[in-house]
Amino acid sequence: MTRRSDSIAVVIPEPGAQLFGDPFFPRILRGISDALAEESMQLILLMPHSRTDEERVERYLGAGHTDGAMLISLHGADPLPAELRRSGIPIVVGGRPPTEGVSYVDVDNRAGAGTAVHHLADNGRRRIATIAGPQDMAAGVDRLLGYHDRLAEAGIGPDHGMVEIADFTLEGGRAAMERLLERHPSLDAVFAASDLMAIGALAALRGAGRSIPDDVAVVGFDDSQLCLTAEPRLSSVRQPIEEMGREMAQLLLQEIRLPDRAPRRVILDTRLVVRGSSSRST
Amino acid sequence: MTRRSDSIAVVIPEPGAQLFGDPFFPRILRGISDALAEESMQLILLMPHSRTDEERVERYLGAGHTDGAMLISLHGADPLPAELRRSGIPIVVGGRPPTEGVSYVDVDNRAGAGTAVHHLADNGRRRIATIAGPQDMAAGVDRLLGYHDRLAEAGIGPDHGMVEIADFTLEGGRAAMERLLERHPSLDAVFAASDLMAIGALAALRGAGRSIPDDVAVVGFDDSQLCLTAEPRLSSVRQPIEEMGREMAQLLLQEIRLPDRAPRRVILDTRLVVRGSSSRST
Repeated sequence: MTRRSDSIAVVIPEPGAQLFGDPFFPRILRGISDALAEESMQLILLMPHSRTDEERVERYLGAGHTDGAMLISLHGADPLPAELRRSGIPIVVGGRPPTEGVSYVDVDNRAGAGTAVHHLADNGRRRIATIAGPQDMAAGVDRLLGYHDRLAEAGIGPDHGMVEIADFTLEGGRAAMERLLERHPSLDAVFAASDLMAIGALAALRGAGRSIPDDVAVVGFDDSQLCLTAEPRLSSVRQPIEEMGREMAQLLLQEIRLPDRAPRRVILDTRLVVRGSSSRST
Repeated sequence: MTRRSDSIAVVIPEPGAQLFGDPFFPRILRGISDALAEESMQLILLMPHSRTDEERVERYLGAGHTDGAMLISLHGADPLPAELRRSGIPIVVGGRPPTEGVSYVDVDNRAGAGTAVHHLADNGRRRIATIAGPQDMAAGVDRLLGYHDRLAEAGIGPDHGMVEIADFTLEGGRAAMERLLERHPSLDAVFAASDLMAIGALAALRGAGRSIPDDVAVVGFDDSQLCLTAEPRLSSVRQPIEEMGREMAQLLLQEIRLPDRAPRRVILDTRLVVRGSSSRST
């Protein structure tokens, strides 16, 4: 059966507030929809908030209303990719998935976090804290690993107490920064695993009377538009988010045409963009 | 043919940046998805950016992949509702639609804008400007009418020069406020037709050294979360956005079950919430 719906689903299992508050999502959707428009494919967005919702998504996709699906922002051992795979639905995951045997596109989160910490150490910072992302998401885990890699390499040594976990949101970043300051008032730098969390951290640092970057240097992750409106402007690890979306769409279209080929992964590089929040000279 | 897909589409023809930047959309989607979850219906989101995209949406909906559609944020004489209606697809529009014979849910935008202007005049303001929304959208037109209604009633008389049109965004609001200040440096109040535009206006007023509310009082429209983080906190016309979403979903489910009944409109009331941006005593 080769019935074609000429449509592709993007499945984002995030609460609405997060989905709409984080500039990551419109950027990756722009990349995806640009690539699909070239092929005259309809993009449909599904936002399951619970396991019951996900089962409804499985039924909808299983009924042939779309030709395939992209899954973004998966948490923990979410069974969705494995279930869809089992139903023979072509899928591509954004970010390293919890399941084997699935094609995905990711950025090199671990190396990216490493460049941020390397830059801070290189500028003489010695008490470098981190606000890590959710540890049930690959992007959260990998960016924390990158932090530890480079601290060890810089001979600073891991200090587990200088890690706080938050949820990639501005409010989460602000609360995590307050906890870090309370426990480690002498910290001189912080790497936050998302721009939103870094901007929350800037607010907490200002609230505590710390000057940026003199007292505390700050680096985020994403290099979103927010970096340019932050005060001071935010240094950040640039990930090519639109490009990630385009790669996902192209990979999925290939999987639909050639369903039997081996799953593959595409890993995109990041680069550090240095601004006023971590360097006096810029 | 009564084939059921048990899914409903929400069609929002807005550029991604706007869709994801405006807190209106997650709130209305939350109301819609709450109502649909009770009925175990799948919600799918379609975001056409061009007329070509809209034709693709028409084909997708026409092929029976959903049981009906809600349309939000329509601009100008968008032919989409009429085309879907012609194809026999049950639809409900959010906001007064450009087409007759279509069911819709709206808030009383004209009266809501009126309460804002009434409040400003009541507090002794006499040079009341407005930042209106897009004049190709019913919400933009109706809120501007409400402003003129009440100015006339307060005996202040319409001064067409104190109106600037923007696009419901923060940046649009800031630029509009700068233009108003340039032309009317003595203005003492401004009603902005969305919270995002009001927050842009606050930034422009601060940039011009005006104190709020002493020099200039500001009232927005929506009563979103943003009102509470603005400095000072923003007075705003509260529209029941989640409720609007729930009403739309319920109306659409009824239209699907009873396709032959007369189209109907549901109009929800607004109320003014006064905070520090327009009143010294709060």
